[in-house]
Amino acid sequence: MTRGFLQELVNILFGYISKTSQRSTKVLDFHHPHQLKEGLEGFSLDLSDQPETLEQILVDCRDTLKYGVSTGHPRFFNQLSSGLDVIGVAGEWLTSTANTNMFTYEVSPVFILMEEVLLRKMQSIVGWSDEEGDGLFCPGGTISNLYSILVARYHFYPEVKTKGMGALPRLALFTSEHSHYSVKKSAAVLGLGSENVVVVKCDERGKMIPGELEISIITAQKKGLVPFYVNATAGTTVYGAFDPLCAIADICDKHTLWIAWSVTWNPHKMMGVPLQCSAILVRKRGLLQKCNELGAEYLFQRDKHYEVSYDTGDKSIQCGRHVDVFKFWLMWKAKVNKCLENAEYLYDQLQRRADFQLVFGHKPEHSNVCFWYIPPSLRGMPPGPERDSKLHQVAPRIKGRMMEKGSVLIGYQPLGTRVNFFRCVFSNPATQQEDIDFLLDEISCLGHDL
Amino acid sequence: MTRGFLQELVNILFGYISKTSQRSTKVLDFHHPHQLKEGLEGFSLDLSDQPETLEQILVDCRDTLKYGVSTGHPRFFNQLSSGLDVIGVAGEWLTSTANTNMFTYEVSPVFILMEEVLLRKMQSIVGWSDEEGDGLFCPGGTISNLYSILVARYHFYPEVKTKGMGALPRLALFTSEHSHYSVKKSAAVLGLGSENVVVVKCDERGKMIPGELEISIITAQKKGLVPFYVNATAGTTVYGAFDPLCAIADICDKHTLWIAWSVTWNPHKMMGVPLQCSAILVRKRGLLQKCNELGAEYLFQRDKHYEVSYDTGDKSIQCGRHVDVFKFWLMWKAKVNKCLENAEYLYDQLQRRADFQLVFGHKPEHSNVCFWYIPPSLRGMPPGPERDSKLHQVAPRIKGRMMEKGSVLIGYQPLGTRVNFFRCVFSNPATQQEDIDFLLDEISCLGHDL
Repeated sequence: MTRGFLQELVNILFGYISKTSQRSTKVLDFHHPHQLKEGLEGFSLDLSDQPETLEQILVDCRDTLKYGVSTGHPRFFNQLSSGLDVIGVAGEWLTSTANTNMFTYEVSPVFILMEEVLLRKMQSIVGWSDEEGDGLFCPGGTISNLYSILVARYHFYPEVKTKGMGALPRLALFTSEHSHYSVKKSAAVLGLGSENVVVVKCDERGKMIPGELEISIITAQKKGLVPFYVNATAGTTVYGAFDPLCAIADICDKHTLWIAWSVTWNPHKMMGVPLQCSAILVRKRGLLQKCNELGAEYLFQRDKHYEVSYDTGDKSIQCGRHVDVFKFWLMWKAKVNKCLENAEYLYDQLQRRADFQLVFGHKPEHSNVCFWYIPPSLRGMPPGPERDSKLHQVAPRIKGRMMEKGSVLIGYQPLGTRVNFFRCVFSNPATQQEDIDFLLDEISCLGHDL
Repeated sequence: MTRGFLQELVNILFGYISKTSQRSTKVLDFHHPHQLKEGLEGFSLDLSDQPETLEQILVDCRDTLKYGVSTGHPRFFNQLSSGLDVIGVAGEWLTSTANTNMFTYEVSPVFILMEEVLLRKMQSIVGWSDEEGDGLFCPGGTISNLYSILVARYHFYPEVKTKGMGALPRLALFTSEHSHYSVKKSAAVLGLGSENVVVVKCDERGKMIPGELEISIITAQKKGLVPFYVNATAGTTVYGAFDPLCAIADICDKHTLWIAWSVTWNPHKMMGVPLQCSAILVRKRGLLQKCNELGAEYLFQRDKHYEVSYDTGDKSIQCGRHVDVFKFWLMWKAKVNKCLENAEYLYDQLQRRADFQLVFGHKPEHSNVCFWYIPPSLRGMPPGPERDSKLHQVAPRIKGRMMEKGSVLIGYQPLGTRVNFFRCVFSNPATQQEDIDFLLDEISCLGHDL
């Protein structure tokens, strides 16, 4: 039974994988929530009290894929977590079959050691010595960023673990206005308060201005806050900008603030590893353990018959922890993947076309390319509030039509004084130049009458 | 290439699944960390700069399974996250092939709605009305517990989100001495401080004593702390005890403390869903959203063409969020699984045998059964420190021998004044009565000379 059922499921998945790579198929077959909830062609999300047959379970699986979004389609540009890497998929299939837990060496000997190997490799790429470095794989980049603030706070104020924030001065964090929202979110969760995250100004390209950081630090001190942590970004969310890391690090050294002592690295983004796969790297060995350990005796017994430093679970803010490392280890064994050429190609095409306008006139630093589509009705219009107000509505309307049609998927947003623009971020290994041409033609076709 | 490679991998997984269910195979083939790191029979964890062939990748997959632990083996009793449910495995294989993200309806229309269906189902089982209830699937039970404290704090002190803990009085939380360590861990992470978690005494069976809770609340108030949150446990970690929920809720009502307004439910434990699958249910609708939302404009645009309340990502403390719901939905469609009979059977067997001693003389409330093995050398010895000191070493030594032999796996720990004892928790659907007989015979065999 088991084998026959699973082989049937695998055949469905093979069909999906093969279809996903075909440009002639839709990226999504869009339905509004109420339509999906009403049930489409017999596909019901409801749970009855009666068990279903295995045949029906297979039909459910087919329908689930049918009404989902093909994130591995060559024309899925919507966000970084995309692609359908075969080695990564194989890694996840094995991981879920092994169904174990990263909290102890006892139940995950191989995966615990793979985590150590990968973390060391990443730490050496970051530039830390063999005597430095610690880390963990975490459920997503926001949680990794939360860890970095958590260990920074503990490093300066170890009493916070037992006594709480009440025993500390009012702390301030610094991050650029273009940084990811996870810094503010983590500050709220950790009891630091989102208002105590000081947003530092960026230059036109989206990079933090070091002089502004220093002014912000001094201003915060004058207000009675105690600066302790600066987040710098290598590849901002929207523009893909790199903050000037060395200049920022010099300022942090001068004021004794946390910065290059931890790094968040998300292999599930540019490296195309299936979600979730994110690591927090911490330079000072032992800090994660001291910050988070509670020594639960039912898991982390000290009288085990093996070297218990491999029971890494007490470094974590989780108890059970999913195995996120294996697929990454396997992909690293198989190859490394590259996406920056696509960004350059898109930039070149946008420069050549009169119906598009680049947000930036220079070559992309990262895989992000930001641009507006300018419909014919706006092309002669002078810059100003009227044009901005109309242009602001173009991207959402094109996106709506795009989702209904299901031909391609890309994200958009406003930023600062800039009205809604498209943001293309390449991480999908299936994407080729013809897909980029298609994207621009399709946007133009869908937005021509606006 | 894709299909051939994945089919080879699937054949390896079929072999593993079939072997895992055979009692004649080992539960684990134990090696110390240094042995695995040196490389066994050509299995190297190291990452070279040269890509490996697909043939070698398949060999790596086979070796990874070979040196791992069979958590789905009928004789894996080590902890709750265990078992190898075929429907659950199918769900995970599909999930990883779909490789999408729970943050928006845009990229996860089906999974977002399945999450809604499951959360409603769980809320109705908890007893909430159709107008009440909200929730999220989270990466593990500890993070779910962290959410419950986070929303409770926000409910009483919404200013904490922006201003931090500095703007609040010194808060106190209450949990029983037998509760899971995640309450203290979350208090440390959230900036509440682990010392402000008041540990309430339990009765002999491991249940919180309501009178002790009330005394603890009043004592904390006298010390200037402000009580706001009580955690009650349905099935404690070691004994599987149920706190007296109604009596505790009455005390909370009287003192206006948070309790029955949120529930953590881990389908990856007793329900046998593959790790990770944990839900936080919150009674007051909208609270999760208000507590955690930051409205990032690149993801949660308000000008989308569909009903944006289905973009549930801003309720979360994560940004990207793995799809944990599908395997659970599929398993719920297929069946429901039962494990309590095994606990009763083990209890009955332990009562009959002279070489074992039960920690409790009454029938198990949950799937936990706690017991000592008494080797012949200790059987005539009177109770007291000398016997305790010897008995304390018995379980770790048996566990060490058990891991070396790889025949069966069970956990142990001390608790309070009780020296190291075995804790059997049943959640593995493969386990049958013969496996329980085997467990006791094996412990007896491995510990007879101690």
